[in-house]
Amino acid sequence: MTVASNTKLILTGAALLVAVVGCSVAVTRAMANIENPPEDDGGQPTSAKIVRSIRNTMNDTRYVMGPPIQAYIIPSVDVHQNEDTTDRDKRVAYVSGFTGSSATIVIEEGAAAFWTDSRYFMQAKNQLDNETWIIMKSGQPATKSIQEWLVEKLPQNSRVGIDPFLMKAKEFQQLSAYLESHGHNLIALPTNLVDVVWKNRPELKLKELEPIGDQFSGKRVPQKLAEVRKAMKALTADIMIVTALEDIAWLLNLRGSDFEYAPLFFAYVIIAENDTYLYLLKQDRATTNKIDNHFQTEHIDIIINEYNNTVAGINTVIRNTKGMVLLSSASEAIQTIVPSERRLEAESPIMKMRIIKNDVEAQKMREAHKRDGASIIKYLYWLETEIDDQNITEIKGADKLKSYKSQHEYYRRLSFQTISAVGAHAAMAHYIPTNDSDRQITRTELYLIESGTQYKDGTTDMTRTVHFGTPSDTEKDAFTRVLKGFISVATAVFPRGAPFSFFDAMARRALWDVGLDYDHATGHGVGAFLKVHEYPPLISSKNMPPGMCKNMFTTNEPGYYENGKFGIRLGNVLQVVDAPHSSEHFSGKGAYKFDDITMVPIQKKMINVDLLSESEIQWLNEYHAGVRNNVSPLLSDNSNILEWLERETQPISKQNEECTETTTEQPETTTDQ
Amino acid sequence: MTVASNTKLILTGAALLVAVVGCSVAVTRAMANIENPPEDDGGQPTSAKIVRSIRNTMNDTRYVMGPPIQAYIIPSVDVHQNEDTTDRDKRVAYVSGFTGSSATIVIEEGAAAFWTDSRYFMQAKNQLDNETWIIMKSGQPATKSIQEWLVEKLPQNSRVGIDPFLMKAKEFQQLSAYLESHGHNLIALPTNLVDVVWKNRPELKLKELEPIGDQFSGKRVPQKLAEVRKAMKALTADIMIVTALEDIAWLLNLRGSDFEYAPLFFAYVIIAENDTYLYLLKQDRATTNKIDNHFQTEHIDIIINEYNNTVAGINTVIRNTKGMVLLSSASEAIQTIVPSERRLEAESPIMKMRIIKNDVEAQKMREAHKRDGASIIKYLYWLETEIDDQNITEIKGADKLKSYKSQHEYYRRLSFQTISAVGAHAAMAHYIPTNDSDRQITRTELYLIESGTQYKDGTTDMTRTVHFGTPSDTEKDAFTRVLKGFISVATAVFPRGAPFSFFDAMARRALWDVGLDYDHATGHGVGAFLKVHEYPPLISSKNMPPGMCKNMFTTNEPGYYENGKFGIRLGNVLQVVDAPHSSEHFSGKGAYKFDDITMVPIQKKMINVDLLSESEIQWLNEYHAGVRNNVSPLLSDNSNILEWLERETQPISKQNEECTETTTEQPETTTDQ
Repeated sequence: MTVASNTKLILTGAALLVAVVGCSVAVTRAMANIENPPEDDGGQPTSAKIVRSIRNTMNDTRYVMGPPIQAYIIPSVDVHQNEDTTDRDKRVAYVSGFTGSSATIVIEEGAAAFWTDSRYFMQAKNQLDNETWIIMKSGQPATKSIQEWLVEKLPQNSRVGIDPFLMKAKEFQQLSAYLESHGHNLIALPTNLVDVVWKNRPELKLKELEPIGDQFSGKRVPQKLAEVRKAMKALTADIMIVTALEDIAWLLNLRGSDFEYAPLFFAYVIIAENDTYLYLLKQDRATTNKIDNHFQTEHIDIIINEYNNTVAGINTVIRNTKGMVLLSSASEAIQTIVPSERRLEAESPIMKMRIIKNDVEAQKMREAHKRDGASIIKYLYWLETEIDDQNITEIKGADKLKSYKSQHEYYRRLSFQTISAVGAHAAMAHYIPTNDSDRQITRTELYLIESGTQYKDGTTDMTRTVHFGTPSDTEKDAFTRVLKGFISVATAVFPRGAPFSFFDAMARRALWDVGLDYDHATGHGVGAFLKVHEYPPLISSKNMPPGMCKNMFTTNEPGYYENGKFGIRLGNVLQVVDAPHSSEHFSGKGAYKFDDITMVPIQKKMINVDLLSESEIQWLNEYHAGVRNNVSPLLSDNSNILEWLERETQPISKQNEECTETTTEQPETTTDQ
Repeated sequence: MTVASNTKLILTGAALLVAVVGCSVAVTRAMANIENPPEDDGGQPTSAKIVRSIRNTMNDTRYVMGPPIQAYIIPSVDVHQNEDTTDRDKRVAYVSGFTGSSATIVIEEGAAAFWTDSRYFMQAKNQLDNETWIIMKSGQPATKSIQEWLVEKLPQNSRVGIDPFLMKAKEFQQLSAYLESHGHNLIALPTNLVDVVWKNRPELKLKELEPIGDQFSGKRVPQKLAEVRKAMKALTADIMIVTALEDIAWLLNLRGSDFEYAPLFFAYVIIAENDTYLYLLKQDRATTNKIDNHFQTEHIDIIINEYNNTVAGINTVIRNTKGMVLLSSASEAIQTIVPSERRLEAESPIMKMRIIKNDVEAQKMREAHKRDGASIIKYLYWLETEIDDQNITEIKGADKLKSYKSQHEYYRRLSFQTISAVGAHAAMAHYIPTNDSDRQITRTELYLIESGTQYKDGTTDMTRTVHFGTPSDTEKDAFTRVLKGFISVATAVFPRGAPFSFFDAMARRALWDVGLDYDHATGHGVGAFLKVHEYPPLISSKNMPPGMCKNMFTTNEPGYYENGKFGIRLGNVLQVVDAPHSSEHFSGKGAYKFDDITMVPIQKKMINVDLLSESEIQWLNEYHAGVRNNVSPLLSDNSNILEWLERETQPISKQNEECTETTTEQPETTTDQ
């Protein structure tokens, strides 16, 4: 699934905590029911009405201590800074009707503004009531950032409110400093004003946790904890407060089902010098034999407490210890519990271990991708053979694909909502079909399918764009330009820690050559049965340490979108591996390359072979041979599909383009490059 | 001239001003003679002795108020944060013997450490006394940064001293915060401790200023000032303190000769709402008719004061006004004159105007480059014809080239010290021949020449690598990989504001493909009769706003260096221009491309044509045709050189590689890309 290439102009999380904010109240509040909603007239109120209700709370001393606030910021993240939240935390969706994963709302006395990035411009335009909302396109040069907009709109000496659990401390401090330099104040409110007005707020749907044995994790919890404590020591920290749910799941070799797509569970962890504390929601899972057995099998002592007591727990640990406390992207609310002189802000050492997969995790990821490839091949075959006989719509197609995937015992869920998009729908990079928008897949338009799965052994994410009739020359040329960028990344050889932006440049070059581009990042890291968006890596123009490292897994998904007409994207997952003769390269420092682990053919009829170089053709033929060899054994019970796969993966060549769609074997071409 | 690709681990400027620092004392001090040197035994003392003398001042209350300092930081920049300083400001060179342009020294009680970047690792190793110095290789993963090293070395509660004029305020604050978080303090000392021990410190060599008429500048001073004031207003600033000498020279259409290579002069400017103040060194130039006439011609009122009164002048302006004061990369010493609540730190709006050349400046730059190309062509011809008959050394060659350049009336000086390097010398990217190192240019080794000039109409910077005998296959392959990257950048089409890192990726790709790389940036901006290093643009993995914009001028200079064997670099200056059919591209936002304005042939015998694609060959042939057409008219008085140029610019082709060195006309090849 693509991500924004530039999010610096949008605040994707939001919070402040200045004076007398009761942190424990706030944590409890995040889970508890809110009393005294100011309105109660049944049914879902309109967006305009919700905005009015929130404005009413802004000068209501029951919710806002001290003078009224003049603006209220509503981030779309949850208290753990997750973008993809549970329904209970979809405050932006409740207030605005927008269902995308990233946006920030600011409600000011005279205006309600809504920031989202280019992935969601069209969706926001379609979903938002344009009489109520000003849509701000983040990342566009002419668009004001939230802070600039606030400073422009606010009367002198204004107070801007926010829930301090919903913004990283660093972002909060920056926003606060900016507002202060313009004479305003950012106020951390103990009560979330959306929750105040949100009647019938959904309850959490909690399920049991799933232990991940070392045949999947490759490393037991005690070893992970020892390595984390060693990394903490190197940073001179004695205590670490772990707030990122993916860090907690990875560290404890546990997965959850609290979220629809990410296999995570609500928790906090405190790693002290000798003790480890886990704060879990009060459900039967904390006491089941399953969890106890897991921690027994893993040979760890862990002190399990109630999630709603996290703030009190942190306070106690802080009080009874003396050393520095490591905080990594913690919310403003959590961070301010720790006295400033004991705070040590640094990247999470757990994150660093998590994004570099160990050999077991890497091997499992590859197996999951073969199985995933087989499901998609089944789906593409089914589409091609049934397209004339059934009315297959975008939703029906996505459901069919899910049914193929879910047949395997390791299937757990999708890793994101399937993007199944016909024609102009695919021009919206993140289009999700709804009952209203659902259209038939035909032989006259391009079809884009992006699908990812959470298997017990790995997370997948792949995109293909296909045509079941005859694509136009424009579509083929654009597809081939996208493919050239895709191949340019896939064939890269690079030094350790190569900057992510380099791969972004490679992916875009062939499009740029003819004045085309796409407005999202080229790739993102993928977790091992964790989040499908895992950073770093993030292949965009924005670099971050440590650059591309061995056993990182990243997507490679360039695209091209023509508004109102069609959209093209190709997406594979790549594993960073040693290049051949690695040790001789880069002055002996070693060279890396990518292995494509996604195993799905790239539709040959979409390619204008004249635009490909011999070396690009060679890559495609070798990739297709790999797909055939890896996936055929999983499809051995269906000779029709095997035949289809055989045909789809036959080599192409420049000399005899017409033959490429037949089953006649072509000699593999060589190249002089 | 190449620049470091990654300087984030080195502090290239340094300063702090905490308690009772007398800023006016310090400014005066920068220009005045220091009394009471603690040693006086004649002759240049050794590096070890100088370090000892500086250590002695660290607990001498005449120079360090309060308790002694435990470490002293010596940056290589001057008070205007220039890297290339006058001899009077070459403190690092005086203390260590190192003559490169960028380094930082830290003298601690038990150790003396020296940081420089990869351009200078070998030079530092050669020039520094290894019993006195620990050489720290900035940018290498294992190298500690200055702050990390300090924290490791210092006893608890240490005081670290620095001259607050020699570090940007932002860097100072960051360093100060880091040291404070580890229990130490950064102390801004009013006295520079190097100046205390430096006997016979060189005097400034000041010369007259040169006015630049509007036939060169393209814009009169009043218009520039009006545009700057408009930009200040947009930033809500009423006052701007201009500290960058290139900003001042550009703004006032004046050039100086205070420095050896950059045509700048020592000055500060204060732009208030109605008045403009210029602080100039007390020399006859401030009162000459020339200057008065210039300001009269330009129709501006400007209040000229003595440079050494700058601090007092700023104080007065601040006292008599109320609005916000814009500061752009000012030193800590200057910045702290302004009360913190009135400081507005932002990029210099003058810099933004300066780096985008106007049409007159752009046209002049192109003319200067043709003339420069003609000089280099004369030099290469001379080398090729005289190499067997004369003992031509690196220095003799560089002198000859300078003599060709200096014949033109617009010649002012070189823009940097010429890099003239034979064989293994060229493996040091920034090798400068000395009498000790000087070697003969022969027919058996590669020769690298990098040369730049300050002409009244523009600044140049170009590199060529040539062989006068038969290059080895290894040398040819490496050269061709460098050329492929060079062509990849030269042929790019890109959207407005394309990230600089993208061009860095393009330049490196062909080298990376075979596990090779180079350890410096790919390019840097070039001033219009200003600094040869002008940022942005900076083509490296580090992005900065605003990305690549129309009428920026940048070098494109990839290379490859094999330690102890040879070095290869190709460098052209590129102008950003509209691409053909620009308006149809990037969704109507317009596309840019580069024009190569450097006019010097690329030696064909160095190319392994088999490694080039048809489109790369086409680019080379078209570039050579352009060189021939543009430079031939300037060489019409010498038929031998014209014949040589004709031969050197004949097209090459894959089919008939043997013919490319003859004068037989080849049809230009076409390409399918």
